[in-house]
Amino acid sequence: MSSLLEQLIEAFRVLPGVGQKTAQRMAYHVLERERDGGRRLAAALADAVERVGHCGRCRDFSESEVCATCASASRDAQQLCVVESPADRLAIEQATGYRGLYFVLQGRLSPLDGIGPREIGLDRLDTRLGEGEVQELIIATNPTVEGEATAHYLAQLARQHRVKPSRLAHGVPLGGELEYVDRGTLSHAFGSRSEMA
Amino acid sequence: MSSLLEQLIEAFRVLPGVGQKTAQRMAYHVLERERDGGRRLAAALADAVERVGHCGRCRDFSESEVCATCASASRDAQQLCVVESPADRLAIEQATGYRGLYFVLQGRLSPLDGIGPREIGLDRLDTRLGEGEVQELIIATNPTVEGEATAHYLAQLARQHRVKPSRLAHGVPLGGELEYVDRGTLSHAFGSRSEMA
Repeated sequence: MSSLLEQLIEAFRVLPGVGQKTAQRMAYHVLERERDGGRRLAAALADAVERVGHCGRCRDFSESEVCATCASASRDAQQLCVVESPADRLAIEQATGYRGLYFVLQGRLSPLDGIGPREIGLDRLDTRLGEGEVQELIIATNPTVEGEATAHYLAQLARQHRVKPSRLAHGVPLGGELEYVDRGTLSHAFGSRSEMA
Repeated sequence: MSSLLEQLIEAFRVLPGVGQKTAQRMAYHVLERERDGGRRLAAALADAVERVGHCGRCRDFSESEVCATCASASRDAQQLCVVESPADRLAIEQATGYRGLYFVLQGRLSPLDGIGPREIGLDRLDTRLGEGEVQELIIATNPTVEGEATAHYLAQLARQHRVKPSRLAHGVPLGGELEYVDRGTLSHAFGSRSEMA
């Protein structure tokens, strides 16, 4: 096999979920049918890797000092939604009608891995809450052990600044069947039942 | 979202089996954790797209005039295995102990799509068989309707040059259970049963 081709296959394996077979298929596909697309991908990748940094306000990916969302005058600066990753931010932005701002932790508290408040930008969040504009801190960390610990920490931080902390509702997913919902979720949903109007 | 990031996500969709969600995951993964890998991928891709062409002998991908396999003195030039794609060639090379040479059609006969003998290099294969060195043409096209038609055509071409055509065996896969083998395969395997020694 051509060594450039071997290098390409090896290089594709850097992508998540791509093993040897998939990497081969990708390399062959690009060379057989998508050379132009391959050129565009190479250019977009080189560009993004060099030029995409983090927004100075919300820590989301951004190629400018302050990202478009943070710079927008039409967003409500009184609400601040904290998420673990840019992907979580995008999911919320696409699924909900939320018009407030975001803060991206780029991680979660994980003392065993040496990830403390500073590593996830909480010093900056602290300053931000101190500015007095934010009224509600919507905590949208993942419902994992570390995400919950981070949520707890964030709620305390909010209360210190007299900002109202809130948390996404947990429970049975819409369209899900009780039979297939995991025990933890079902138990939580049962305990958190609300009266019907 | 950053427009460089949007471009990157869009560019990833050129890869086979990659939709919007996977493209997002890939872009975020590279930017969050694999910037060096991303740089390498961009460079390998740009390089391969520009410099990988086809071997003048076997039509497989190659960055030189003649690929390493065709140029190798240790391969048996009396056997020539015809496959549809570079991926098929690689699968045979990795799974079997075959020491002969290959010829890669880069397609299959498909008159309705305007793919005739010339488009899959059969004029070149014709010349090659005419040189007299090849003794056996191992036909390893896929067992699809078009692959079978191509195999039939190839066998005729071989016979014209007094070269022995052979075809990969079809039947029940090793480790497969009869119950789950498709009807066509089972019927073929039944009809092609061989006496046990």
